Amino acid sequence: MKVNINADIGEGYGKYSIGNDTELMPLIGSANVACGMHAGDPTIMVRTVKLALENGVSIGAHPGFNDIWGFGRRQIRMRPTDLEYLVTYQIGALRALAGSNGARVTHVKPHGALNNMAHDDIDYALAIGRGIKAADRELIYVANAGSQMTRAAEQLGLRYANEAYVDRIYDDNGKMASRERNDAVISDPEQAAQQVLGILQEKALITSSGKRIPAEVHTFCIHGDEPTAVQVMRKVRESLAAAGIEVVSLPTLFGLN
Amino acid sequence: MKVNINADIGEGYGKYSIGNDTELMPLIGSANVACGMHAGDPTIMVRTVKLALENGVSIGAHPGFNDIWGFGRRQIRMRPTDLEYLVTYQIGALRALAGSNGARVTHVKPHGALNNMAHDDIDYALAIGRGIKAADRELIYVANAGSQMTRAAEQLGLRYANEAYVDRIYDDNGKMASRERNDAVISDPEQAAQQVLGILQEKALITSSGKRIPAEVHTFCIHGDEPTAVQVMRKVRESLAAAGIEVVSLPTLFGLN
Amino acid sequence: MKVNINADIGEGYGKYSIGNDTELMPLIGSANVACGMHAGDPTIMVRTVKLALENGVSIGAHPGFNDIWGFGRRQIRMRPTDLEYLVTYQIGALRALAGSNGARVTHVKPHGALNNMAHDDIDYALAIGRGIKAADRELIYVANAGSQMTRAAEQLGLRYANEAYVDRIYDDNGKMASRERNDAVISDPEQAAQQVLGILQEKALITSSGKRIPAEVHTFCIHGDEPTAVQVMRKVRESLAAAGIEVVSLPTLFGLN
Amino acid sequence: MKVNINADIGEGYGKYSIGNDTELMPLIGSANVACGMHAGDPTIMVRTVKLALENGVSIGAHPGFNDIWGFGRRQIRMRPTDLEYLVTYQIGALRALAGSNGARVTHVKPHGALNNMAHDDIDYALAIGRGIKAADRELIYVANAGSQMTRAAEQLGLRYANEAYVDRIYDDNGKMASRERNDAVISDPEQAAQQVLGILQEKALITSSGKRIPAEVHTFCIHGDEPTAVQVMRKVRESLAAAGIEVVSLPTLFGLN
Repeated sequence: MKVNINADIGEGYGKYSIGNDTELMPLIGSANVACGMHAGDPTIMVRTVKLALENGVSIGAHPGFNDIWGFGRRQIRMRPTDLEYLVTYQIGALRALAGSNGARVTHVKPHGALNNMAHDDIDYALAIGRGIKAADRELIYVANAGSQMTRAAEQLGLRYANEAYVDRIYDDNGKMASRERNDAVISDPEQAAQQVLGILQEKALITSSGKRIPAEVHTFCIHGDEPTAVQVMRKVRESLAAAGIEVVSLPTLFGLN
Repeated sequence: MKVNINADIGEGYGKYSIGNDTELMPLIGSANVACGMHAGDPTIMVRTVKLALENGVSIGAHPGFNDIWGFGRRQIRMRPTDLEYLVTYQIGALRALAGSNGARVTHVKPHGALNNMAHDDIDYALAIGRGIKAADRELIYVANAGSQMTRAAEQLGLRYANEAYVDRIYDDNGKMASRERNDAVISDPEQAAQQVLGILQEKALITSSGKRIPAEVHTFCIHGDEPTAVQVMRKVRESLAAAGIEVVSLPTLFGLN
Repeated sequence: MKVNINADIGEGYGKYSIGNDTELMPLIGSANVACGMHAGDPTIMVRTVKLALENGVSIGAHPGFNDIWGFGRRQIRMRPTDLEYLVTYQIGALRALAGSNGARVTHVKPHGALNNMAHDDIDYALAIGRGIKAADRELIYVANAGSQMTRAAEQLGLRYANEAYVDRIYDDNGKMASRERNDAVISDPEQAAQQVLGILQEKALITSSGKRIPAEVHTFCIHGDEPTAVQVMRKVRESLAAAGIEVVSLPTLFGLN
Repeated sequence: MKVNINADIGEGYGKYSIGNDTELMPLIGSANVACGMHAGDPTIMVRTVKLALENGVSIGAHPGFNDIWGFGRRQIRMRPTDLEYLVTYQIGALRALAGSNGARVTHVKPHGALNNMAHDDIDYALAIGRGIKAADRELIYVANAGSQMTRAAEQLGLRYANEAYVDRIYDDNGKMASRERNDAVISDPEQAAQQVLGILQEKALITSSGKRIPAEVHTFCIHGDEPTAVQVMRKVRESLAAAGIEVVSLPTLFGLN
C-alpha cells in the first residue's frame, strides 16, 4: 500500500523564515512550494526546489492570495477570472524557476484561505482548476477529500488527489476545524499518527465528534509552519512504516514517472 | 530594410490604467508586457497578451523591480542572484499566461530603473541575462545599444537586439538623458521621427549635443505610458513607411518564425 | 438648510492617477483622503491635503483594506483587532501629514469593501469605531444611514454622520446596489440630483424599486474615481442651490468650528 | 555617567516573527519600533508599544523604505520629498497607535539601508530630518556619530543623539562595515562589551584597523533580529554596570521627562 505526504514548504519571505524545511523535506513525498503571493520569494523558491530535488521529493505549486501580511490566511473575495489568472501566474513562475534547476512541477495545492474557500465554493474551485489546466493539463490538483475541489477537477477533466490532514482535526462537515478552535491543530505526534492510520484503514475522515465520512485519501498534508511539524512527521512515518505503508511522491502514486 | 518597434505595454494595475494600449498596439511590432512587479497584474497580462495576438504583435516579458509605488523607476540595490531569480519568475509567469492563450514569449526587455542600472552595471546586466537564459535560452535579450547588457548577452551566448529610443533624447555617454531633465522625453512627433530615421540612416545614436555614437539598432522603444505615445508613433510609422522601412516583430527580424 | 457632500479623493498611487481631484475638490464640502493602503501614498496624501486646504474643504481619513491591487474593493476577512489597529494606523499617518500642513483631520469614512462589510457586520463596524476612537474621540464617523456603523458609533459614544450616495442606487435593504448590477452607478447628472433632493425632501432613502426607508442624511458621497463625477457634482450643486440648500463641511454641519 | 541603549524591535510581519523582543526589551533603554514599511504591522506595533511601556522603555519610530521583501535593507533611490513624507507617515502611524495606549513617541531612528544612505547623503539626511520635524519638532533624531545625519539635524534645529553600534564593526570611514564582510556583525558578547566601553572611555569610534575617530556617543544600537542579541546585550549591561554607567531612556538622557 502506498500513500503520499505533502507539506507546505518554502514559506519564508525575504529575511523571514518559518518552519524547518531542511528537516521536514526528507520526511515527505511532495512539497507544496509557496509562489511569492502569500509567502515565498524567487530566491526562496529556488532554494526550496533544490532542497526538494536533493531529497527526491516531487514539486508542486502552492498558490495563495496575494497577501503577505495575512500569510494567505485571510479570506479574500475576488472575481473568479482574476483568481484563475492569479493561479496560472504562480504556477508559471515556479515552473520557470524549477525548470532552470532541472525539476518539474507536477501538482498544485491551493494555500490557506484560498483552499478553505474552494472547499465549499464551486466558483473558486473551478477557477483554481481552470488556472491549473491553463498552465498544464497534466498537473495533479490536490483537493480536500469530499470538497467542491474534487467536483471541479472532475468537471474539468483534471487528475486530482484526495487530501486529508495529518495535523488538523475535522468537524462534522468534513472540513478542517477552524483555527479559532483551541484544538484545531494536532501537535501531539501520537494523535497525528492515529489520525493518519485511522483515515487510511477506515477509508473515512474521522471527525472530532467521532463521525465517519467515507473518503479514499491519496495524500496527507502536514503544515510546515507548525513548530511541531518535524516531530509529528517522524512519528507518522514510523507508524506508516510499521503498518507496511510506503510513502511515495504524487507522480509515483499516480504512475506518472 | 526592416526594423522593430517595441513598447512597454499593459502597465496598469488593478483599477489603475495607464497609456493607451488599444491604440498603440497596432502601431508596434513587439510588446513588452509588464509582469506584476512594477506594474501589470495577471488579469491585465492576459488582456495584453490577447490584444497583442489580435494585432500580430510579438510578446516579450518586461520584468522590473518589485515596486508598484515607484512604478519600477526607483533604483534598488539587490543581490545579483536575487535579481536573476526575480527575472526568471516574471518570465515564467507571463509565459504561462501567454501559453494558455496560444501565444509565445519571444523576448525580454528590462523595465525602468532596472534597465537603467543594467546599462552600466555588468553584474545587473549579467544577472538579467542569466535570468533570461534560465527561463529559455532562445529568448531575445533587448539591450540598450552600446550598454553592458549587450556585453552580458554576448558573454552568456544569448541572442540580443540593440535598442534605441523613439521618445527619449541621448546624452553624450550614449544613455537616455535622465527624466530630471526637462527635455528628456520627446513628445513632438516630428522630432521623434527624425530621431528614428537619423539613427537608422547614420547607424549611430545622435546625442543631444550632436555627437554620433556608432550603433546598429534593431529595435526602437516607445514608452506606452506617455500621453503622446500614439501620436508620436503614428508619425514615426509614416516616416518609416515613406523611407521604405518595414516594421516587423522581433522574431521576424531575427528570422525565427 | 445645510448638508455636506463628501468625496473619496487622492486615490492615485505612485505613477497612477485616478479621478479628477482638482475639478472635484471645489464642488464638495469634505474630502475622504486615501491613506496608503487601498490607494494614496504619502506624496499624494500631502498634495490632496493642500488641495483641500486651498478649497476650504474639511479633511477626513479614508481607511481601507491593505490591497492596492484590489483598490480596497475586495472583501477581506480579518480579525477585528487587526482591523481596529489598521484604522488607527491610517488615521495617524494622515493626521501627521495634514498637521504638518496646518490642517486637521475631522472625520473618518471607511473605503470600499470595508465600508460595505461594516454596513452589515457589527464586529467590523465596532472595530472601525474603536480604531477611530483610539486615534481621536472627537472624530466624526461617517456611516451609511441605517447601517451597523451608526449603531457602533452610538455604542462607542462617537459622533457620526448619516451618509447616503449621490451616484449609487439603493436596493430594498437600504444598501448600495452591488457594482455587479449594470445600473448600480448613477452617471446621469439629472438622476443624481433627483436622488439627492429626493432623499433630503422625503427624509428617506429611495430604493430602486421605489421603497422609502426613513433616514435623516447629513452627508452625500460622490465617488471621485467615476469619470462622470465632476459633471454629476456640478448638477447636484446647482440643484441644491436652487432648493436653497447650502453645502458645508462636516465640522461646520456639526457646529464644531 | 549615563548612556542609552536602543534596539530595532517589533520587526516581525503578520505571521512572521524575528528576534526575541520579550527578552531584549528589559535590557534596553529605548525601542525603535518598525512602522509597517520594512517590517512591523499595526498589530505588532501595538504589541511592541505595550511591551515597551511594561519595561519602562522609551518609544521611537523606526521608519524604513517600503520594502518588506528586502527588510528595508536594499538601497532605494527616491525623491527626497517622497522620502520626507514617507518618514512623517510612519511617525504619525506609530504615534496614533502609541497614543491610544498612553505612550509617547520621543525619538526617530532610520532603518537599514535608509540609515546607511543617510549617513553619507545630505539630501537623504535632510529629508529624514524634515520628515521628523514635520511630525513633531521635539523628537530626537538618532543619528550615526559623525554622519551627514548629525549635520542635517543641526541645520534643521533638531535635537539629535550620536549613535554607535554594539554589534557591528567600523571601517576607517567611521561607518559600519558592510554586511558583506564576514566579521561585520559582532556576535561575541565579550567583543561587544569591549566595543561599547572602548567607545565611551576613549570618546571615539574604534575602527577594525584600530583607528580612533573622535565621537561623543549618546546611544548604542543593538540589532534585535540577530540571534545573539539577548546574550550580547546581557554582557554589555553587565559591563556597563561594572563600570558604573547607567542605562537610561533617550528622554531621560536629554532631560526631557
